[in-house]
Amino acid sequence: MVLRVGVVGGGQLARMMIAPATEIGVEIRVLAEDEGMSAALAATAVGDYHDAETVLAFARDVDVITFDHEHVPQDVLRALVGAGIAVHPGPDALLFAQDKLQMRARLQELGMPQPEWAAVSDVTELQDFIDAHGGRAVVKTPRGGYDGKGVRVVSSGVEAEDWFSSLAEDARGGALLAEELVDFSRELAQQVARRPSGEVRAYPVVETVQRDGVCAEVIAPAPHTGDRLQTVAAQIGVGIAEGLGVTGMLAVELFETTDERVLVNELAMRPHNSGHWSQDGAVTSQFEQHLRAVLDLPLGDAEPTAPWSVMINILGGPAEGGLDERFANAMAQHPSAKIHTYGKAPRPGRKVGHVNVVGEDLDEVAYQARAAAGLFGG
Amino acid sequence: MVLRVGVVGGGQLARMMIAPATEIGVEIRVLAEDEGMSAALAATAVGDYHDAETVLAFARDVDVITFDHEHVPQDVLRALVGAGIAVHPGPDALLFAQDKLQMRARLQELGMPQPEWAAVSDVTELQDFIDAHGGRAVVKTPRGGYDGKGVRVVSSGVEAEDWFSSLAEDARGGALLAEELVDFSRELAQQVARRPSGEVRAYPVVETVQRDGVCAEVIAPAPHTGDRLQTVAAQIGVGIAEGLGVTGMLAVELFETTDERVLVNELAMRPHNSGHWSQDGAVTSQFEQHLRAVLDLPLGDAEPTAPWSVMINILGGPAEGGLDERFANAMAQHPSAKIHTYGKAPRPGRKVGHVNVVGEDLDEVAYQARAAAGLFGG
Repeated sequence: MVLRVGVVGGGQLARMMIAPATEIGVEIRVLAEDEGMSAALAATAVGDYHDAETVLAFARDVDVITFDHEHVPQDVLRALVGAGIAVHPGPDALLFAQDKLQMRARLQELGMPQPEWAAVSDVTELQDFIDAHGGRAVVKTPRGGYDGKGVRVVSSGVEAEDWFSSLAEDARGGALLAEELVDFSRELAQQVARRPSGEVRAYPVVETVQRDGVCAEVIAPAPHTGDRLQTVAAQIGVGIAEGLGVTGMLAVELFETTDERVLVNELAMRPHNSGHWSQDGAVTSQFEQHLRAVLDLPLGDAEPTAPWSVMINILGGPAEGGLDERFANAMAQHPSAKIHTYGKAPRPGRKVGHVNVVGEDLDEVAYQARAAAGLFGG
Repeated sequence: MVLRVGVVGGGQLARMMIAPATEIGVEIRVLAEDEGMSAALAATAVGDYHDAETVLAFARDVDVITFDHEHVPQDVLRALVGAGIAVHPGPDALLFAQDKLQMRARLQELGMPQPEWAAVSDVTELQDFIDAHGGRAVVKTPRGGYDGKGVRVVSSGVEAEDWFSSLAEDARGGALLAEELVDFSRELAQQVARRPSGEVRAYPVVETVQRDGVCAEVIAPAPHTGDRLQTVAAQIGVGIAEGLGVTGMLAVELFETTDERVLVNELAMRPHNSGHWSQDGAVTSQFEQHLRAVLDLPLGDAEPTAPWSVMINILGGPAEGGLDERFANAMAQHPSAKIHTYGKAPRPGRKVGHVNVVGEDLDEVAYQARAAAGLFGG
């Protein structure tokens, strides 16, 4: 009997689960939002993941439902669970990836290190928070933000007036999340895999470089990282995975501060851009690990296979002119580069693929990866 | 514009092209012999590859046709070429993988080292060859043999009488291939990738261990291999690829003799069992390399990513009892093992998957691979 995993969402994360599913002999089925998406090869259904009936019909005959993204509404998730379908990560965990205010409150209960924060329900409360934190703050919409959207650095409460107005119109009402503007030296990410039956594996902590709020580059493991930092990051990752009951892959985005603290920035409960290096640089890629975890199969080694891996995102350049010639150029000039593509039409700023290079010497590895990705003019 | 590759044959080699095709953004379409074969995920057609119309219809709209096996008849191959379809490897090259007598004659013209051989058309000629070679010989049917089938070690001409009779009935008539029984110390395999435009890359020579005529284990690179042997093996591989005009992956099975000669045993013009280690142990796997080569894209590094890789085939045990629990056991006890499955129903002696382990210490790598594969009781 072949195990079957159903993935809601047809983006590149679902696409990148196809290869390891084929290798370990798991049947993968995808519910895609549209025809011709990144994961089209495995798409057995096309429909709206906001519609419980659509998702329930898709979920029939699979052993577990998992996700390409965290946007499936709680009522749909709970309808799946109510129908006796295994859902990993489950709704109780996903809630904390869907609502940043809930996440901050829960991490506080768990005693996790994080920026100072507050729920602010109007301009005045935001202004008070700004005044109490050196005249600046980060303000976030609790829901629906990604890749820098729904995030603003403000120095005055009125700069978020439009968001407060739309909150007022929103039936749910609610508040915005205000956070101290952290003076960080760099950003890190800690990934952890966790099975429903409890087995946990931590990947090495990595350094992530963001540009315009989008992950641009990842160095694995994070350079200049002592045992203490690795241990602290792994403890935070495992603590959150267990504390929130996360199943599958968890990515914890971290700030390393100039005063040597590590603070939790964001959470993702799925394979994550900060783990793409693992496709070519770890014994078990995050995509194979996610499949093993959600199916409650034994987890694989999360160890690197070489001293250094560097991942560079390819951002789609001008829409005219396909990627083919650029791929051929990158392949020809950088035979050590592993090029991964998402089958998406190129658009300026859109993630259409990434390059991994793995090796002994960080300078050489980073040079090859940046040079290969640079040929795509992203 | 996305490049499209059409693969004739739905076996595990086609299946293992799906992962790299997805990664490098190539659309892969498979013409499978039946429903539910190993490569079913990418099967866009089911039909008989002996039928030119079926293959021509499948080949429409792809950029190149390549193969899961070498059994497509010459007339079908030439019909494709006649229709202006790119076919790699092409019929002129594939002929030498389809007919062992043609292969021996051509390698002789190329001056390649090989066992002494002769075309024998009856029992008497075979007996004469046996008498001239120490009283024993290997006799092979020129066509249709694989995994030890169509091969016999004989000490008397009458032991091949049945084959001569069927040759007589065969309209084509023809002869059998007689070869000296080589006194070899071990078997090696040299893989080479070659593009239509000429670029060639050689993989490290590997040691292959056969059991009952079937590849059981591969150690990459071959242990105790000096520069001379590696150079000789690579020269043979490149010489054959160029001399026969092979495009895509070529595997040359070699005998290393007790008197330190290297002799060509068999050829395969496709990804080959001796190269499965490259999925986890080389910068570019033979499956990605084959796709790059047949599409005439620049080739990737063929270098190992670690000092040692060991591949062990999983032979399907008793049909009752699926593989799942055994996979879970192997995953649990050997987290460093990369388990690859072919989506085939287990049958005694049938190749249903393989295990790769990669690392620094050959003893440890081989132990982990053999122990993990051993759990499948193949």
